[in-house]
Amino acid sequence: MFDKVLIANRGEIALRVIRACKELGVKTLAVYSEADVDSLHVQLADEAICIGSAASSQSYLKIDRIISAAEIGDVDAIHPGYGFLSENAHFAEVCESCNIKFIGPPPAAIRAMGDKNTARATAKKAGMPVTPGSEGIVETEKDALRIARQIGYPVMIKATAGGGGRGMRPAHNDGSLVQGYHAARSEAEKAFGNSGVYIEKLIENPHHIEFQIMADSHGDVVHLGERDCSMQRRNQKIIEETPSPIMTPEIREKMGADCVRLAKEVGYVGAGTIECLMDDNGNYYFMEMNTRIQVEHCITEEAYGVDLVKEQIKIAAGERLSHWMHDAKLKYHAIECRVNAEDPFNNFQPCPGKIDLYYAPGGRGIRIDSHAYSGYTVPPHYDSMIAKIIGMGTTREHAIQRMRRALDEYLITGIKTTIPFQQAIMHDPDFVRGHYNTSFVTKLIEARGEEFGK
Amino acid sequence: MFDKVLIANRGEIALRVIRACKELGVKTLAVYSEADVDSLHVQLADEAICIGSAASSQSYLKIDRIISAAEIGDVDAIHPGYGFLSENAHFAEVCESCNIKFIGPPPAAIRAMGDKNTARATAKKAGMPVTPGSEGIVETEKDALRIARQIGYPVMIKATAGGGGRGMRPAHNDGSLVQGYHAARSEAEKAFGNSGVYIEKLIENPHHIEFQIMADSHGDVVHLGERDCSMQRRNQKIIEETPSPIMTPEIREKMGADCVRLAKEVGYVGAGTIECLMDDNGNYYFMEMNTRIQVEHCITEEAYGVDLVKEQIKIAAGERLSHWMHDAKLKYHAIECRVNAEDPFNNFQPCPGKIDLYYAPGGRGIRIDSHAYSGYTVPPHYDSMIAKIIGMGTTREHAIQRMRRALDEYLITGIKTTIPFQQAIMHDPDFVRGHYNTSFVTKLIEARGEEFGK
Repeated sequence: MFDKVLIANRGEIALRVIRACKELGVKTLAVYSEADVDSLHVQLADEAICIGSAASSQSYLKIDRIISAAEIGDVDAIHPGYGFLSENAHFAEVCESCNIKFIGPPPAAIRAMGDKNTARATAKKAGMPVTPGSEGIVETEKDALRIARQIGYPVMIKATAGGGGRGMRPAHNDGSLVQGYHAARSEAEKAFGNSGVYIEKLIENPHHIEFQIMADSHGDVVHLGERDCSMQRRNQKIIEETPSPIMTPEIREKMGADCVRLAKEVGYVGAGTIECLMDDNGNYYFMEMNTRIQVEHCITEEAYGVDLVKEQIKIAAGERLSHWMHDAKLKYHAIECRVNAEDPFNNFQPCPGKIDLYYAPGGRGIRIDSHAYSGYTVPPHYDSMIAKIIGMGTTREHAIQRMRRALDEYLITGIKTTIPFQQAIMHDPDFVRGHYNTSFVTKLIEARGEEFGK
Repeated sequence: MFDKVLIANRGEIALRVIRACKELGVKTLAVYSEADVDSLHVQLADEAICIGSAASSQSYLKIDRIISAAEIGDVDAIHPGYGFLSENAHFAEVCESCNIKFIGPPPAAIRAMGDKNTARATAKKAGMPVTPGSEGIVETEKDALRIARQIGYPVMIKATAGGGGRGMRPAHNDGSLVQGYHAARSEAEKAFGNSGVYIEKLIENPHHIEFQIMADSHGDVVHLGERDCSMQRRNQKIIEETPSPIMTPEIREKMGADCVRLAKEVGYVGAGTIECLMDDNGNYYFMEMNTRIQVEHCITEEAYGVDLVKEQIKIAAGERLSHWMHDAKLKYHAIECRVNAEDPFNNFQPCPGKIDLYYAPGGRGIRIDSHAYSGYTVPPHYDSMIAKIIGMGTTREHAIQRMRRALDEYLITGIKTTIPFQQAIMHDPDFVRGHYNTSFVTKLIEARGEEFGK
């Protein structure tokens, strides 16, 4: 096992990794920006090194400073968390070249899955359904038109280097296709320095279903079921649950087997997530693979009774998958709400600032992953998420009841949060019945516009 | 199901009951003393009524005021929590006579188990092993000597109305027996208004093993395994765990069956705990039955995946035991540490006062039940417990590792707490090996006297 691990991240995920390390008896080194000097991850790590100013580009994305900190701290390994450098294959290579273990998959696997078009081809090769679409990059407007007509509208134009909804354009006819093709290329060029786009059949109002994969460096791969992440606002997940209300044991088995095969195909190691779109009839299509731990990994942990971050670290240290991964069974229903410092009554405007009073809910079936505390100032420079509430229960109904009371109990004064919006969803009859897809949030905001979003 | 429940308690257990009610969709009415006006149970309940001044005798023990509050609030039921009126058969009767459901066993069962000598006789009748001892109250010094010689020294003289270690005297020979007999009688007379004492064989350095019982009003009774509460300081539990490191599946089955039989014998309904002493060879003896929810119920909830307080309320509403109670299996190892506002470096002196900064640990496998928050003032009038940390894991080792990191993370400034003492125990080699009994804490304090307790 490692002696000391550097955590190249901040916020709740930095805490999550510190906790896992402590439970494994591994020392921790936090790195932080000047804006995060009062952060809990700095306080709770064994050591901490400031690596730059507030802007991510000057700190959490600054590879040379992180490597310097690792060398000063004499660490064995780096855990990248999610976001920032977590899916940066170059960073993983730099780590390895400095003899520091990168806690994540091999750089080749990151690259293979990072390029959306290659990922799609790999999925197809592994026998996983992909949405009908272009074979590779669409080089000209003429090709785009031909392919779109062939697939049939509506279609989606997607940047091959894309992510987070950027470089994407839907098209419902020839006119919007031509416009969208050029717009997506130019946006992708600006955002990723790569203008390549491809075209896929647009699955309308799909469900976002993703599978948790764990793979060790000895070729052993398992999945730990699905997460339903259809509850999104502008492609940002705000509530996730497992099991999915639309999943059946038969589809789970088939889809899980597909995901395991895909992970093996790319020589995957560590924790990863395969994201798919699913229509109302249970047809599913590979979307992308995230080659890191996800924000919403906690619901899988609670529902299956495992510890994914500890497992990640053990895998990186060369250990085989623990028997808990193989024996993991769906024990509970689990739901997560992401508490963001945003004003749901004012178009979800970010609301950084000082938290006056902070009281987190507790008790049976409620887990809180948060770096917030009374007196903490949420800096304006980063993601607005300040806490995750994970509620579990023996049934979906119990989990919802727990989540409702936890949301009611949560006391955060001084800043605005998304809690009222999540409370509305937890009481929405369609959500309670499990009837929702990725268009739910948009419709809810439209229907209740005087309350939310406007 | 009930429409509204009054919680006749304070602190974390009042919160625990409020949470259970909220999850069941039941409204809550808190009662509070003037000292608890800023308490979280007052804030989180739907309604709250002040019932008197700080002294328990003027508020939480004041039956007429609680009943008045119940009538003003028009509640259907009263949950007594633990301590205060929870084992007061008269209070249960007053509730019933006012047409308010008492969430607990029938008054007759409370009485039968409240008198220690009757309880012992009942246990014997139900076929549960009891320590060799007098058949009933020992009326004279002469009888006491005869019985003690017959059982063989050492023996324990115990008040029949006793509890919490009062009215108890050990005796190792005729001299200490005569002295102890009179001392115990006089202490019992003062403390309980009942000088009756009985004599039992003294089990030296025993383990405190208790069984969780759940019974519905239709005659169905189950047990949910044992809790090891041997980690005590002056008869006060400070750390509990389940399963017990000394338990075997065979003894659990036999002991559990004995406990179920005893509960049936007294017509028990609701949540109850049967406390036993166990020697190193697995011989066990009935000690007493607590006819209420216990402080340490949470470890059973985490280890078996159930919700005992919700079940209590459902049982009181006439429902049958849920299938979760019947299907409950030991899934995890769980440990609880009771965080008390006491100074472990100064003879565990109570340390009431204002908490400046409060940060509770979170993350996978950690549950916090607490009424504390930043700025909360711990009043001097009540029990010093301010929080319970429950740590679980797939093995005992994992649970200990979790508890260590949670204790490290817990940040409470402004007052002293028992956390450093519990940290020492979590790192003690004998505790880690599972080698401890009820004399462990005394020995630890003696061995490390310069640090703790002196």
